[in-house]
Amino acid sequence: MNSASNHPAFNSRFLRALRRETVDATPVWLMRQAGRYLPEYRATRAAAGSFLAMAKNPELACEVTLQPLRRFPLDAAILFSDILTVPDAMGLGLYFVEGEGPKFERPVRDAAAIANLAVPDMETELRYVCDAVRTIRRELDPAIPLIGFSGSPWTLACYMVEGGGSDNFGKVKALALNDPAAMHRLLEVVTDAVIAYLSAQRAAGAQALQVFDTWGGVLSPAMYRAFSLPYLTRIARELKRNDVPVILFGKGNAPYLDDLFASGADAIGVDWTVTLEDAARRANGRVALQGNLDPAMLYGNPDAIRAQVQATLDSYRDGNGGSREGHVFNLGHGLSPDMNPEHVAALVDEVHRYSAR
Amino acid sequence: MNSASNHPAFNSRFLRALRRETVDATPVWLMRQAGRYLPEYRATRAAAGSFLAMAKNPELACEVTLQPLRRFPLDAAILFSDILTVPDAMGLGLYFVEGEGPKFERPVRDAAAIANLAVPDMETELRYVCDAVRTIRRELDPAIPLIGFSGSPWTLACYMVEGGGSDNFGKVKALALNDPAAMHRLLEVVTDAVIAYLSAQRAAGAQALQVFDTWGGVLSPAMYRAFSLPYLTRIARELKRNDVPVILFGKGNAPYLDDLFASGADAIGVDWTVTLEDAARRANGRVALQGNLDPAMLYGNPDAIRAQVQATLDSYRDGNGGSREGHVFNLGHGLSPDMNPEHVAALVDEVHRYSAR
Repeated sequence: MNSASNHPAFNSRFLRALRRETVDATPVWLMRQAGRYLPEYRATRAAAGSFLAMAKNPELACEVTLQPLRRFPLDAAILFSDILTVPDAMGLGLYFVEGEGPKFERPVRDAAAIANLAVPDMETELRYVCDAVRTIRRELDPAIPLIGFSGSPWTLACYMVEGGGSDNFGKVKALALNDPAAMHRLLEVVTDAVIAYLSAQRAAGAQALQVFDTWGGVLSPAMYRAFSLPYLTRIARELKRNDVPVILFGKGNAPYLDDLFASGADAIGVDWTVTLEDAARRANGRVALQGNLDPAMLYGNPDAIRAQVQATLDSYRDGNGGSREGHVFNLGHGLSPDMNPEHVAALVDEVHRYSAR
Repeated sequence: MNSASNHPAFNSRFLRALRRETVDATPVWLMRQAGRYLPEYRATRAAAGSFLAMAKNPELACEVTLQPLRRFPLDAAILFSDILTVPDAMGLGLYFVEGEGPKFERPVRDAAAIANLAVPDMETELRYVCDAVRTIRRELDPAIPLIGFSGSPWTLACYMVEGGGSDNFGKVKALALNDPAAMHRLLEVVTDAVIAYLSAQRAAGAQALQVFDTWGGVLSPAMYRAFSLPYLTRIARELKRNDVPVILFGKGNAPYLDDLFASGADAIGVDWTVTLEDAARRANGRVALQGNLDPAMLYGNPDAIRAQVQATLDSYRDGNGGSREGHVFNLGHGLSPDMNPEHVAALVDEVHRYSAR
């Protein structure tokens, strides 16, 4: 029923842009569009008691997913969930310490711990995510596409080995350096789990799937090509069989765009350290591009924000042979809690206004 | 007396490499080589009572500068100081909160505050730094070059406007976006101060000068070219009159290497997100290169570290037409407190052993 061409969202700006088809205006959604910068999100979270209680409750996850769509004419919704649901379901014990970000009770540090990992069952251990997708898809305007997502294997492995965030990723890089075979076994099982997870979100009703390689950019080129890129490529290729567009977003992925353009993904999401003009020229029509305004530009005043939006739209067009086709407007990273919703409104408005034909 | 060609360090490996002359082995020094990973550093700091008390005392600054040279056959010493001495001398009130990094009591947030800034006097307000350079130069082996340093204008401005570290540099980017003229006035006065500061370090006895553009890489290309690059270029050009080699290090500077190679600097320091092969090929003999092993590789075992050192040395050679000339080995960023001094020893040893002819 959600399958591709007969879904009401099939001809949405967002899905058309991912197919590089003509659109009446450039579509826009924003990473972390459901988040703490919205007072209604903070209220839902406070009522839920904790971030995890909210993320694990399909009705509350649905509520916060829909909140930004009620405020702004966004062109896609994205499942509200945590990036670490998969390792949590693998038994690592996800928890949060206020102000410190996510942590695992049982990080994975050696070959023995890695050998014990298995792909979780999606309809039992991750049922709350599938239920959230089904609930959102039922409540969301049928014409609006819903994006499912997962962390990339390398990014999930960073958290799984470090046990939380890290300044220099010393533990996960030491594992990769001292025991590359164990590191690859870890990435293999996580990749299997990510593919199953994204396929389950697809089956539950998501129209597009995004992989967040948040920490790929902390690697040297040799290590990126060994420990992140091959797993991203496998995900893109295996999900393609499902006939669902796949977006690979990576912070710091600019040095690897040529590899990513050849990965089989439908779209590549880039941060603001590369111009869309340069990225689009190198893409040369092979894939769609998503991005890439520096989120900190939202701290500027609305006039400055509108000028930045225009420059971003024009940068893509200039690199794409004069056409705006194949561009999904987004930030180069997520929104922050101290951002002003009115500035977000100006951004979304300007994307549609300036790109309209 | 410290001037160029008659100084005992003139024919050191390090200064020869910066001039792209032949060397018997590739020189190596390490960013933050004087630091908390050394027990003798921790002892000096504990006795001093605080980081700032140590940094502001020329004898203690000399002591910690020399400590890594007593352990490892490093090819250069680098002045021990704080990156924020210049804004502190401009009246911002530097202080440290344990575990939170540097902060300013009086951050600079608007055009009025910027208009009040002036270049500090080097031999009064920053005399403790000049004294530290003189003391170190007197105590250090005359054959070992001493590196003076400063933060880059953009990087200093980040701390001055944010009032400390930042996740997304929202305040400084908002200033640049909302009032670019004020931002440029801030960068102008800071650049004047940095040039005076580095010239004073040169006059006090430093044989080379490094500028740390730690936060240049957080900018979009358009903003980097507006707010960081022109000021780096001015520093390189104005210091060149002093006949002293200048190294411009920048985290995330790989997209701008062609601009930096043309900046007038003698050497460009790069992080590990670009291969030295690629950087050297693009430099094409115009400048020396410094870098670029991922510091996290020091968490690997000594055999793995040695293999990584070899790969880094060979990467430079492969991009430099088969020659090791013009390479100063370094990390791509600083050492961390939890690193093992024995691993640092293996790294330094392998650089010299593998590159020796």
